[in-house]
Amino acid sequence: MNRLLLDVLDGQQTERPPVWLMRQAGRILPQYRAVRAGLSSFKELVKNTDKAAEVTIQPVDELGVDAAIVFSDILVIPEAMGLDYELVKNTGPVFSRVIENEKDIDQMGEGDAAAEKIDYVYDVIQEINKRLENRVPLIGFCGAPWTLFCYMLEGHGSKTFSKARRFLYQHPEQSKRLLDKITSVTIAYLTRQIQSGVDVVQIFDSWAGVLGHEKYNEFGLTYIRRILEGLPEGTRSIVFSKGAYSSLDQLIDLPCTALSFDWMRTAKELTQKIGHKKVIQGNLDPCVLYGAPEVIEAETKQILSAFDRGHIMNLGHGVYPDTPLEGVRHFVNTVKSYRYDSI
Amino acid sequence: MNRLLLDVLDGQQTERPPVWLMRQAGRILPQYRAVRAGLSSFKELVKNTDKAAEVTIQPVDELGVDAAIVFSDILVIPEAMGLDYELVKNTGPVFSRVIENEKDIDQMGEGDAAAEKIDYVYDVIQEINKRLENRVPLIGFCGAPWTLFCYMLEGHGSKTFSKARRFLYQHPEQSKRLLDKITSVTIAYLTRQIQSGVDVVQIFDSWAGVLGHEKYNEFGLTYIRRILEGLPEGTRSIVFSKGAYSSLDQLIDLPCTALSFDWMRTAKELTQKIGHKKVIQGNLDPCVLYGAPEVIEAETKQILSAFDRGHIMNLGHGVYPDTPLEGVRHFVNTVKSYRYDSI
Repeated sequence: MNRLLLDVLDGQQTERPPVWLMRQAGRILPQYRAVRAGLSSFKELVKNTDKAAEVTIQPVDELGVDAAIVFSDILVIPEAMGLDYELVKNTGPVFSRVIENEKDIDQMGEGDAAAEKIDYVYDVIQEINKRLENRVPLIGFCGAPWTLFCYMLEGHGSKTFSKARRFLYQHPEQSKRLLDKITSVTIAYLTRQIQSGVDVVQIFDSWAGVLGHEKYNEFGLTYIRRILEGLPEGTRSIVFSKGAYSSLDQLIDLPCTALSFDWMRTAKELTQKIGHKKVIQGNLDPCVLYGAPEVIEAETKQILSAFDRGHIMNLGHGVYPDTPLEGVRHFVNTVKSYRYDSI
Repeated sequence: MNRLLLDVLDGQQTERPPVWLMRQAGRILPQYRAVRAGLSSFKELVKNTDKAAEVTIQPVDELGVDAAIVFSDILVIPEAMGLDYELVKNTGPVFSRVIENEKDIDQMGEGDAAAEKIDYVYDVIQEINKRLENRVPLIGFCGAPWTLFCYMLEGHGSKTFSKARRFLYQHPEQSKRLLDKITSVTIAYLTRQIQSGVDVVQIFDSWAGVLGHEKYNEFGLTYIRRILEGLPEGTRSIVFSKGAYSSLDQLIDLPCTALSFDWMRTAKELTQKIGHKKVIQGNLDPCVLYGAPEVIEAETKQILSAFDRGHIMNLGHGVYPDTPLEGVRHFVNTVKSYRYDSI
């Protein structure tokens, strides 16, 4: 197996950093669009063992990335807890109902009883591993409790998630009860993913950035920490708290293997602050991939040399759907032909 | 006149900080909703001298805030340059066409020739001052060039403004030419606002947070600096670069009077870094105002005591439209009854 990703996460020296892209299985690939065109919805694809496995492996075949990430959605957990949603074109997720009060929280499922409803994901993982034939490691993932809480209260995407935050200020104890439930499902869900065969898990806290420092520590990081502490011994984990700019010290203290960052912090700042305490993943601005080949190469190399070892190359955000495939390819190839100076 | 805001900006000692709210003239007030109901659109209100002056003064009468801010919109500049837009309910601004190439940039107006088309704002300012009778200072404002660039390229709001950023990577020199033009209009626009009677100007860079450190310095702060240097001697200015988390040192170096912040940085961090180099405005999470009176009071007082002198109390974002009026009132009154310890 190409063990680059695992070696870096295990603290081994490698000749170059591994590279993969968030949302690498998706609309940037014509092969993905062909599969998707034959199905009625994104959710149908997520639940189709054969097709979900197929699109997971496409970027490994087509781009030569150093890891596969399970094709799925962070909202499978709220759905398993009892809140149904649809993905609406040009809008994103829309829930058929939202959490409004204590009674709604009572009704939400929890723990393994909810996690076992997401059995289609475990099936997909097993199918991917059969077909992947140990070529590259497989990454599983979930949304962080705070981010799932946002969708469960708001019912759809939002720039500010002010309904979710209002509930937090008005009902802090009820909020914690819901976050507890989400956390219990998440621990069971990730544990089952690991048992089914993922090598690494990544926790996405996409909406960390709408909470201030103290609130994010209390309502965000508390639950991420609990998840990490609840996973099987030796689990390799990556935490991506997007926008948690004032909680870097607290992120460094989390019991995870790696931290993922967007492009708002420079490599210099990150390496100075983090040192060897965590592997660092990121952090090219995905818009660089719209640029000319020489721009892509220069910006990618700048990040590669600024981070040096203990680094997983990635974008600072999921690759944008309209990114030219040639730009993505040029990025991946630039990383793959890079070599660290010998020590 | 209640000179609290001016005194703090001029470096004078005051017994308490001044307080106002971004978007204080708006839907939180029943008086505003009554005026708005009689007109066909937000844009009609912006261009109606009588009504725009009326809603500007409403929060001074109703809430007792220490400043008025001209009721207007940041997109009056793109419109004056040649791009028309509509404000669509539940969607926000939608432009009838966008900048796509060099020729589109050629066609955009610039400098005073464009700024003079925004004469309705200067009329509104004069009318406000007639009616305000020097009770409180009047704040004028504009969008920063980068933020206006985002809308002019994207054509509407966006979480990522990836079209605008793509253009930046693909056409950096053309991007700078457009930013130059926007900057020239902005200097003329703010100068005319000052000549018409505003006491302070605030520059809103709402989308600073989508650019990385180096790109924001190059395509964002460069133009804000040029505006500040182009304003009449002695102009009091506030810069709000929302989300520019990795550019704090560069913000501190700007030739402005005050910096405004959202709630992602703690008062402790801001005061330590900024000291007395700039007046600091902010930074209560607007969702606090959804909370119970004791929550509003506690969170407001925490910020008041953490910042101490050289502080303008405000929210970290425009007040959310569905905020209960009683919550807003309780916030304002908490600040107004606060007193600094004597030295």
